[in-house]
Amino acid sequence: MEEEKEHEVDEIVERAVSHGRSVKDVLIEMKNTSELMVDLAYSSLLTNSREIAEEVQRLEKVMDDLQYEIEALLLLSARNVEEAADLAGILHVALAAENIADSAEDIIDVVIRGIGDHPIYQTMISESEEQIARIVVGPNSELVNKSLGELRLSKRIGAYIRAIRRGNRWIYHPDKKTVIKEGDILIVKGDKPAIESLRAMCSS
Amino acid sequence: MEEEKEHEVDEIVERAVSHGRSVKDVLIEMKNTSELMVDLAYSSLLTNSREIAEEVQRLEKVMDDLQYEIEALLLLSARNVEEAADLAGILHVALAAENIADSAEDIIDVVIRGIGDHPIYQTMISESEEQIARIVVGPNSELVNKSLGELRLSKRIGAYIRAIRRGNRWIYHPDKKTVIKEGDILIVKGDKPAIESLRAMCSS
Repeated sequence: MEEEKEHEVDEIVERAVSHGRSVKDVLIEMKNTSELMVDLAYSSLLTNSREIAEEVQRLEKVMDDLQYEIEALLLLSARNVEEAADLAGILHVALAAENIADSAEDIIDVVIRGIGDHPIYQTMISESEEQIARIVVGPNSELVNKSLGELRLSKRIGAYIRAIRRGNRWIYHPDKKTVIKEGDILIVKGDKPAIESLRAMCSS
Repeated sequence: MEEEKEHEVDEIVERAVSHGRSVKDVLIEMKNTSELMVDLAYSSLLTNSREIAEEVQRLEKVMDDLQYEIEALLLLSARNVEEAADLAGILHVALAAENIADSAEDIIDVVIRGIGDHPIYQTMISESEEQIARIVVGPNSELVNKSLGELRLSKRIGAYIRAIRRGNRWIYHPDKKTVIKEGDILIVKGDKPAIESLRAMCSS
């Protein structure tokens, strides 16, 4: 078990170095991951959604790998005292991002353990507040192979795509050029009617 | 020093109880505060803004008070084992929100200590990404005494008011009915030109 874990970390670090990943790339991904996790964690709690809680658990695994990746890249970088001081600052930020992610996981623990149905959480959503939903794009959906620019979902139905999960890959801030694929998991923000409209468009 | 601190906590708890604040009210405020702190902390780092870092420090003080408030309210609430179990779940969420806030403060520590000028942070902002700015509403600004519904800032200039600080009070999700006052500190999201337009409207 221990050995297997060590092997995994070897792989993470080797892949990062061989793909020429930079500290900046990894730090951006840690920022995006931690922000999305907080967003999803509170939404999961307020709607008592186990589905969304499980997306947070998936992201926590991503975050753990990123932590090893950035630590390895930073350890390979420092060549003198001045550089080490700069890199210590970056490590400090990376650890803070990881702590944010851990706290997001603490929030969804309540949902995972089945005590997220306390009425207080659901009353925390105001009438006007946007909700987050997780929608799978079906094979016959009109969204398949269209870009977000073509679809103009926010103008047409008031729903905004916060992130997309495609297998194990996450797209955190999809833009106009992002093309939707069959099987994509959309993380959507919007009011209830907007989310229902989008759900219909994804399943058909 | 110790005694003064104890006195302060007495006051926080008394005020909460006498104002009839509920666990729900405080939990919503903790959620909103922690979310805003994460948003501001990363923005402060990416723009090396000490001003925004200081808003995070202000919010951390708010968060500390909220933590005492919710703990006191929860301790006053439990009357049997079942209730205690429910309330333990709520306390767990409150502590997670407080940890998110602490991690946000860890991020801005880099800015406060003056090591936020490492070029890596500023290169993390993509061309298209929205930035956060902190803008004071001047006495002759055209925004004074107008509601956000009247101003339609997002349609007119593409800037979105994320939060407003009015003295020590925070408005986290201002809506159409929120009226802007002289001296308000606006926390604004938008691209560079939108923020510059709004800055001009606030100073004139």
